[in-house]
Amino acid sequence: MSTARRGRRPGAPDTRAAILAAARERFASVGYGPTSVRTIAAEAGVDPALVHHYFGSKDQLFLAAIEAPADPADLLPTVLAAPPDQLGAAVVRMMLLVWEGPARPAGLALLRSAVSNEWTAKLLREFLVSQVLRKVVSTLGFDPDARAARASLVASQLVGLVMARYVLRLEPVASASPEWLVAAIGPTVQRYLTGEIALP
Amino acid sequence: MSTARRGRRPGAPDTRAAILAAARERFASVGYGPTSVRTIAAEAGVDPALVHHYFGSKDQLFLAAIEAPADPADLLPTVLAAPPDQLGAAVVRMMLLVWEGPARPAGLALLRSAVSNEWTAKLLREFLVSQVLRKVVSTLGFDPDARAARASLVASQLVGLVMARYVLRLEPVASASPEWLVAAIGPTVQRYLTGEIALP
Repeated sequence: MSTARRGRRPGAPDTRAAILAAARERFASVGYGPTSVRTIAAEAGVDPALVHHYFGSKDQLFLAAIEAPADPADLLPTVLAAPPDQLGAAVVRMMLLVWEGPARPAGLALLRSAVSNEWTAKLLREFLVSQVLRKVVSTLGFDPDARAARASLVASQLVGLVMARYVLRLEPVASASPEWLVAAIGPTVQRYLTGEIALP
Repeated sequence: MSTARRGRRPGAPDTRAAILAAARERFASVGYGPTSVRTIAAEAGVDPALVHHYFGSKDQLFLAAIEAPADPADLLPTVLAAPPDQLGAAVVRMMLLVWEGPARPAGLALLRSAVSNEWTAKLLREFLVSQVLRKVVSTLGFDPDARAARASLVASQLVGLVMARYVLRLEPVASASPEWLVAAIGPTVQRYLTGEIALP
């Protein structure tokens, strides 16, 4: 069961912090997909059951590790319910809904940290790819290379929208209504998702 | 001539630094357009001729103040020589040319600073708007509100491309060839420049 290889015991006050530190290290160095709760537990010197007890699923552990401003699992079903030709607009609308709400400070903190710290950049990339973009793009039936190309193009526009609206405050993007942004930027995301995009 | 109201004299070792500090303060607080070399000189306590002697034009003073990675005046003529229906591709190609070259570390430093410091964010915004975007968009003959809307949408995609390729390193955008990015993202910038975009 518990290997306690760093001398920590389950239930010790720093157990939760040790699990989060191990999770950050593994998710950033190996990526979300190949990392198991078992590996993180071993790295933290605790029983995997304790990781589940503290954090629930691997998804939820990941969100805690990056201090995610919102849980995509709560939001994606609404996006994925959009008709395929409305998916771009639905993605932009959902992103703005999150960023216009109480999650914005945590989102900005994550972005700031990612820009100055390569480790956080890796975690944010893993978050965007594994928790958001891959789930949206996988509904469209492309092969894996095309999915990755489309997902990273979508990310380039969404991250840029956040930067222009909330960080650089470029007008009128900074103070425009969400629906104007959906109308202006939704078609870009739609083209990246379903339009003619050659493989790199 | 020199007002020397802070006790500095022209030619004192800190004169150049005082001019740059005054320039950063004025450009960030008032913006590029309304700020004159004369105001900056008065703020720094030096003669305007000395500002011109050290930095040349107001444009060049601004580039020095934000430690700009490249001078748009050297690059924009090539972009603006593109046919109107190729302008989006030309903008993306030029931006990648700058970022693939020796200017990248300075560009990333500016971006990092802008994300964590509101003052630098204002300067970077002024730089993008006054030195780059306004000059590209003004060739297309829209009214001022439409120009601002189009310019800020273009910025949202270009800043996001920089973030995805050089900061978050999202694949395949991170390692794709510049020409693939021009083909994939050029049409987005083209639509923001010349397509159907409602006013906010």
